[in-house]
Amino acid sequence: MSARRLTPNDMLFLYSESRETMMHVGGLLPFSPPPDAPPDFLRDVVDELRSGVKLYPPWNLRLKNPDMLRSPVHHWIEEDAPDIEYLVRRSALPSPGDERELGVLVSRLHSSDVDFHHPPWETHLIEGLEGGRFAIYTKMHHSLIDGFTAMRLLARSLSTDPDERMQPLFFTLPPDPRSRRAQRPAPPDGFFGAVKEQLNAARDVATVVRDLVRSLRDPFHDIIGPLQAPMCVLNGRIGRNRRFATQQYRLDHFKAMAKAGGGTLNDVVLALTGATLRRFLSELNALPSRPLIAMIPVNVRPKDDAGGGNAVGSMLASLATDVELPVERLDAVMTSTRAAKQQLEGMTRHAIVQLSALMLLPSGLQQLSGTSGRLRPQFNVVISNVPGPEEPLYFRGARLEAVYPMSIPIHGQALNITCQSYAGTLNFGFIGCRDTLPHLQRLAVYMGEAVTELSRALDVPVPAAED
Amino acid sequence: MSARRLTPNDMLFLYSESRETMMHVGGLLPFSPPPDAPPDFLRDVVDELRSGVKLYPPWNLRLKNPDMLRSPVHHWIEEDAPDIEYLVRRSALPSPGDERELGVLVSRLHSSDVDFHHPPWETHLIEGLEGGRFAIYTKMHHSLIDGFTAMRLLARSLSTDPDERMQPLFFTLPPDPRSRRAQRPAPPDGFFGAVKEQLNAARDVATVVRDLVRSLRDPFHDIIGPLQAPMCVLNGRIGRNRRFATQQYRLDHFKAMAKAGGGTLNDVVLALTGATLRRFLSELNALPSRPLIAMIPVNVRPKDDAGGGNAVGSMLASLATDVELPVERLDAVMTSTRAAKQQLEGMTRHAIVQLSALMLLPSGLQQLSGTSGRLRPQFNVVISNVPGPEEPLYFRGARLEAVYPMSIPIHGQALNITCQSYAGTLNFGFIGCRDTLPHLQRLAVYMGEAVTELSRALDVPVPAAED
Repeated sequence: MSARRLTPNDMLFLYSESRETMMHVGGLLPFSPPPDAPPDFLRDVVDELRSGVKLYPPWNLRLKNPDMLRSPVHHWIEEDAPDIEYLVRRSALPSPGDERELGVLVSRLHSSDVDFHHPPWETHLIEGLEGGRFAIYTKMHHSLIDGFTAMRLLARSLSTDPDERMQPLFFTLPPDPRSRRAQRPAPPDGFFGAVKEQLNAARDVATVVRDLVRSLRDPFHDIIGPLQAPMCVLNGRIGRNRRFATQQYRLDHFKAMAKAGGGTLNDVVLALTGATLRRFLSELNALPSRPLIAMIPVNVRPKDDAGGGNAVGSMLASLATDVELPVERLDAVMTSTRAAKQQLEGMTRHAIVQLSALMLLPSGLQQLSGTSGRLRPQFNVVISNVPGPEEPLYFRGARLEAVYPMSIPIHGQALNITCQSYAGTLNFGFIGCRDTLPHLQRLAVYMGEAVTELSRALDVPVPAAED
Repeated sequence: MSARRLTPNDMLFLYSESRETMMHVGGLLPFSPPPDAPPDFLRDVVDELRSGVKLYPPWNLRLKNPDMLRSPVHHWIEEDAPDIEYLVRRSALPSPGDERELGVLVSRLHSSDVDFHHPPWETHLIEGLEGGRFAIYTKMHHSLIDGFTAMRLLARSLSTDPDERMQPLFFTLPPDPRSRRAQRPAPPDGFFGAVKEQLNAARDVATVVRDLVRSLRDPFHDIIGPLQAPMCVLNGRIGRNRRFATQQYRLDHFKAMAKAGGGTLNDVVLALTGATLRRFLSELNALPSRPLIAMIPVNVRPKDDAGGGNAVGSMLASLATDVELPVERLDAVMTSTRAAKQQLEGMTRHAIVQLSALMLLPSGLQQLSGTSGRLRPQFNVVISNVPGPEEPLYFRGARLEAVYPMSIPIHGQALNITCQSYAGTLNFGFIGCRDTLPHLQRLAVYMGEAVTELSRALDVPVPAAED
């Protein structure tokens, strides 16, 4: 049994874990079964997945010292006898098995914390969806694997061929030899070592942390830009319970809106989110008079980056929640994103890396600074737009209908919106704190109405399926 | 919004709460629907239960300071707007919806901890059981209500009349004016105040705690009796995950075995449990050579108790797991219980109260002494036999089939067996730590085989339904 030390970034996700700020990510994947599927199709699949299965890293790794999450050093060890019935579960929807009931069940499953005495992930095969459909919900702790890598592994375990009926699921795949994790150098010890590595280690750790804490406290810090996020109910302390809602749209519809409005796909996503949040917060009597500010992770190449490749950065943009009319709102968003991009282009690599660290380690650093959910936020909501598989994928003949990512709400960020493209669709996952944001599932409804409204204002036809 | 201080005993259940030692009790109640039930019978019931419902104490109480479970003072406050969709939930079984699937789902629901930011209870209405049946699973924190009172409230909310279709469920019933909780004097402050009150306050608290710790360490302490429990896998540290299994028998069958064997109903329960554990532990290569010792809560009237009423005491008895043949095993159990009863009759009221405290506060006191799950146990397993409703009960025409109690495993006591009588049946609930006791669900199977074996040995006919 070999032990491997956790990477610094992964350790910070352990340090941040609490019953309220659970650091697991996940995804929901609904499937249409093949036309020739027997009634026990899904049950047979689960039986087969569980029988004599061999798990490969990272899916068979568990913490060596699961009772001391704040330990300065952590190791993964390979679990000799993983409890596969614990890790791979069957669930069912109560009647009528519609999208609402699916959302309720997945919200509930996402609200329980992982047990680090087992490998910290679970996969649920959910039966009882309308029309004989089923879904796979998977959650995994961010210390074990990041969402991007997980999605890549998942896509590897699906097939573009509807007639391929033998492929195993992701956790039974041998590790990808191209995995970057395997090539990483041994990480340094401890919490400050972790922060240091994360920030590329050139500077004194205390200085970095001080700067970041200062940037949290000072809304006019130069890396933040001229915008200032208002106080909002989205930015308080959170509870442990989650609510998850989903929406799926046609990608070409969104692209047509972007073209008609003169902006990017991302601008349309932001403007629609703004419309959605404007209505949601108005109904709670909690709409700030100043526009909400979104933080958007983006791929950037900074001006002083001589080498190729992308760096993950982020930008802040207005959601124009103070604007009433849909086209004017889109215009306001476009003005804001253009300014943010110009500013980002003017930033040094160092500032971008610092900003990325802030984005990647929100809870760890906010715990350090003690400000999370208590001070004025730098931004009100994180909105991610992730490219996904372009071709339709199948699992044993069952067609993957959608890919809904599930990210991490934390203290100070009670809502997260992630959308992912897949096979000509754009799939939205809204995840948030159930207790501080009541009726969160309405976000999906309001988004649908905002799409119709903006389409009509831009004179873009609404596809029948979205009406 | 009125605040009420927690009773001392209730506070100890808060102090004992951890992710591994969750202090909630529960119950599983399967129902047969009325013959004229529409397809959406259960869904309609849930909709009605949730709409415009008024909750009464204790069901609308939540902790005033839910983030500080070890606070020396706790108060319940009435939640103004209970989240009824959070408290009253719908669930469904995956196919084939048999008893095994029901056990899996209920085990999983029982493995999650309550959120003290809400009233600390949940009720799940579970559809998808074979034959159009359904089940109600309820869990509630022991600090809010004890299992005995909960069962009484639940029985009040059911009807002996199958044609009564309007009765509300337990959480919508006005409080019983006879409730003892309402008449209690204001409790003393803090942890030591709680211990003191629990022990009737006559003695110095430090002395009491010292005596109890000594009794944990010294297996020959006079209140323990001559028996000594062996080290056993049942008595280690536990994890957070539970497994629950059930069995139902005819009460007259058990009484016939008791009569044929010359013992009590309880002796038969113990002998059968002994047979079950003997086989279960043998298969794990973990059967101690010395017999397992059970702790059995009993109603006793001590010899120096001048007043009427019952006091809750307990006795220790051998499960005769070292005996191979069923009738000899029953004889060995009877010898042991007779000796225990004689000893109990010879005990002072003070010793009985002390023993009761030990029984009622296992985790709190074991945490104080630091010995739980690490020292030789005083007993290996707790087996409770609780009298339940004698008449068949109905909920809106649906017949209650069984009542399966779910108790609390703790560090040092990984398994709990509780049986409850109901309408001519005897209903066993086996609950334990899933991670330290693998294949726990086999206990139910082995119990069935032990019943058949003892019946044949005693020449008592086995009812067809139990074969």
